[in-house]
Parts: sequence; C-alpha cells; structure tokens
Amino acid sequence: MSDLRPPEHQVAGHRASANKLGPLVDGSGLFYKPLQAGDRGEHELAFYEAFSAHATVPPRIRDTFFPRFHGTRLLPTEARPAEPHPHLVLDDLLAGLEAPSVADIKIGAITWPPSSPEPYVAKCLAKDRGTTSVLLGFRVSGVRVVAPGGAVWRPERPELKALDTAGVRRVLRRYVSTVAGDGTDCALAAAVYGGEGGVLSQLRELKAWFEEQTLFHFYSASILLGYDANAVSASGAGGGVRVKLVDFAHVAEGDGVIDHNFLGGLCSLIKSKVLRGKEISDLLGCGVRRLT
Amino acid sequence: MSDLRPPEHQVAGHRASANKLGPLVDGSGLFYKPLQAGDRGEHELAFYEAFSAHATVPPRIRDTFFPRFHGTRLLPTEARPAEPHPHLVLDDLLAGLEAPSVADIKIGAITWPPSSPEPYVAKCLAKDRGTTSVLLGFRVSGVRVVAPGGAVWRPERPELKALDTAGVRRVLRRYVSTVAGDGTDCALAAAVYGGEGGVLSQLRELKAWFEEQTLFHFYSASILLGYDANAVSASGAGGGVRVKLVDFAHVAEGDGVIDHNFLGGLCSLIKSKVLRGKEISDLLGCGVRRLT
Repeated sequence: MSDLRPPEHQVAGHRASANKLGPLVDGSGLFYKPLQAGDRGEHELAFYEAFSAHATVPPRIRDTFFPRFHGTRLLPTEARPAEPHPHLVLDDLLAGLEAPSVADIKIGAITWPPSSPEPYVAKCLAKDRGTTSVLLGFRVSGVRVVAPGGAVWRPERPELKALDTAGVRRVLRRYVSTVAGDGTDCALAAAVYGGEGGVLSQLRELKAWFEEQTLFHFYSASILLGYDANAVSASGAGGGVRVKLVDFAHVAEGDGVIDHNFLGGLCSLIKSKVLRGKEISDLLGCGVRRLT
Repeated sequence: MSDLRPPEHQVAGHRASANKLGPLVDGSGLFYKPLQAGDRGEHELAFYEAFSAHATVPPRIRDTFFPRFHGTRLLPTEARPAEPHPHLVLDDLLAGLEAPSVADIKIGAITWPPSSPEPYVAKCLAKDRGTTSVLLGFRVSGVRVVAPGGAVWRPERPELKALDTAGVRRVLRRYVSTVAGDGTDCALAAAVYGGEGGVLSQLRELKAWFEEQTLFHFYSASILLGYDANAVSASGAGGGVRVKLVDFAHVAEGDGVIDHNFLGGLCSLIKSKVLRGKEISDLLGCGVRRLT
C-alpha cells in the first residue's frame, strides 16, 4: 500500500491531494481511480463490468483501446485516511513509458447523454460551445510533452479551455515537437502520428469498430494519447505509441444505434490537418526548415 | 407562368397557399423555392452560388446528390400577386417520377450552426431532444408513400415529430412497403434500399465524400429519398431511386474541418437496422411471411 502515489503524468481530471480524491498508481502497472461522487462512480463501474464481460466486443478492441479492468478495491485516501473509499482498479495506461508525453482529447460535439436533466445539458452545452467541441467534434482536455532534455511543457487548464480551432491544431503539433516552450518543430510527427502502430493507424482501426458497434454511446469519454519521449526517435523506431479510451462516467446504452457523436468526432480528429498523411509531410517539411 | 403550381408530392417545409409562400414546380423539371425570410433565404442563395462554382466539389457529387441551381427568379405569388418574390430556381428532384414515394430525413444530432444566437440554439435543441435527432443522429421530417392502387400514406407532422427510435425504424420499413395504411410488408426493401443504385449504395458514396470534405457544414439539411412507386418492382428493376441533399439555409463554412455532425448522422442512417444488408434480408423474410 505504501507505494501508492498520485500519477505524475496525469493531464486531466481531479488530482489526489490532502483534501481531494484523485487517482493513484502503484508503480507496478495498476491505476486506482476513486469512484466519483453521485451516480457517476456507480455508472462508470457498471460500464466496466458490462464492457469487460460483453461477448460481442472484439477482444482485439478491448485489449488495444481500453484499460483492462481488475475490479474494485477499498483504499484509504489522503483526504480521509480513516474512511476507505472504493476505487476502480485499472491498468496504468502509461506504465512502461519512461518519459510519457500525454494528450487527453475529449471526443464528440455533444458531451451529455441524451437522458440528462436540463441543467446538466445547459452546463455541458456551454462548455461544448465555449471550447472547440461543437466546431471540431473534440477538444483537448489535457496535454503534457517531455522535451529531450527532460523539460516538461504542460499548459494550464484555462489555457486549454480557451483554445480555438487553430489553437488545437497548434497543440497537436506541439505534442510531436522536441523544442522547449511553445514552439513547434513537429520532429516526431511521422514517428508518433504516422506509420504502422502510429496514432493515425490506431485511430482508423478504432473508427472501423465505431462504424459498426451499437452497444455503447461514449458521451464525454476521452482518447488518451501517449508515447515515450525518451524512446521515440524521429526515424520512427520505438516510442510505444498508445491510443486508449478513458472516462466512462457518462456512457449510455447504444440500443442498436451507432455512436454517431463519437464516430463523427473521431473522424474529425483523424482528418485534422496536423494528423493526416499529407499534412504530416508538411510537418516534416517544417522540421526540415528548422534545420536550415 | 400559368403552369406554375405547388408540388403535390412535397413532404416537408412550408406549402404555398393564399396566405403563405411555398415552393412551385413548372411541370417541366424546375422547382421554384421562395427565398426564406430574414437572412435564411440570402444564406441559402449564397450557399448555392458558392457550391455551384466551387472548384473542389467533385462534379459527380454535385450532379448526383444536389439539385442543380439555375439562379433566381422574381415570381408573383398567390399570397401577394402584385409583389413579385425572389425564388431559387432548382431542379425538381422528383421530375420524371410518375408516383413519387418520398422521405425527408433531417441529418445530424445538432441542427443549429455553432455561431447561432442563444435563443435559436435553445429552440433547435428542444426539437433535437424532443425528436430522434440527438439519439439517432437524424429524424424523419416528412414521408409520403404511394401504394400500388394509388392510395397515399402520409402521416401528419405532429405524428412524425412524436416518433421514437422504434417509430423511425417502422417508418423506414413502411417507406418500402406496398400495403395500405400503417402496415409493413417491406416488399420493396431490396429494390429501393439494396442493390446497385439503391439508397444504401448511394448513401455510402455520399459518406466517402463527407469523410473528406471540409468546405461546408450542412446543419439542418435533409436527405430526400425518392422512388417511383409505379415503376419499382420487388425484383429490383426500375424505380429511379434518388438520394438528394436539400435545405441549405443553415449551412456553415467548414474552415478545414470535416462535417462530423452530418457524417455521424449519415453513418447512423446507413447502419439503421432497417437499411443494412443483413436487415434487408430479414425484411424480405417479412415479405415472404406475408404471402404464407
């Protein structure tokens, strides 16, 4: 138990502290997410239980794109040491990455399940309109990039919330850049976004499933991108690029209908100017210009 | 001019009458749509002008899926004979069909352009949540089916607005049925939805374009389906199946982003249980059962 600690690479969601519940990692590959208040926690737990056991979810999809679910565990928390709190036990998606560069991208123009009460819809809608969700079909909720020397670039949340479409594109370029500060050289674009096992290839595989699956609607879920800044090289070798779905407190049943909202956002991310094959060449061009 | 008359097959939108503006047809292949009030009419005209001239719209897409635009024309109206009103001159999409069976399907979970003022968003959102738009990514705005004897089935608008997901599926089955009243035999499912040139095949071609195009976002536009109930046969010959986009008063500029909202709804329509290959077989099964 003593080796449980807040994950240092977390980019979105609540962080554990003396007066706040937040996720913990054990350093050996597990991630403990405290059940959220209200019915969100129960809802997310119910999703993991249903999803883990669902006979029609292809194992390849479950294993590649979702954290493995290991049940729940009561844990004392820093906030209330005497009162153990239930946690979801999940795979630590960033385990094994020495210097994780991470991006949390909330998918969908609509982030509220259709059955939500009016005040919740109004609150989400204001956020969806105030960020790029409605325009782009996704928004960047968190990002952390490790530069070669170890310096970490990590914009604050208000800065991310204020991003417009051009700003989101800039962050997606910054995510694959090796410079310090706000600059971009996109030196890692081909290695991280392109190629076999790269982000684009994984997103396309995910898309093929979303064109068919009618089991779940993933409102307000995120795609978490990760790679190892210490292992990746511009040549494309290594890097352990990961594409994972996270945050399932607002998943709704599909009832035989595809998740058109997530699918639309996912297609928009795939087609993003920074991510496309053609545009990746442009980015590599930008990397070359930097050397001249 | 004297042969201008309201189209008898119109299933959605305003109808021309003594005190209302509505579209007219001339019986020789043209459709006259009065410019809508406020900035909607100007907006739709601007869209047609931009779209018609846009160098990067593939001619095949423009010719197959959009009404051809022939400019505008001032016409006297029944409502105000002394005060000519500007009309968009478009192809009559149902010209040549002797007994048109028509469905108007409004695409997208979101029907308001992102730049809309708050009260308009609230009004659209209430409709989107009150119909199947948010859940299904589309709703049926109008439908008219001609039975073999010539009897017309045409539910009223309040009935269509009240449809839930199951109701929409039933209407899509009814659209390809040859019975009178509310029943379904789905006798025309394979002929209308399936096969080369059928609805599904055309929707898939449209989808391929929407996965790429970043020019326009078609908020609140509809897909109009049409076939000739007198020419179609269960064997699949004839029928002149048409799939067309209509209603462009709320189109927004794409600014390099795909229309994830329309694309998502389109994918949902393609994947509808009544429309898919597998389900079409089921429907043919249902037709066979009727004969036993």
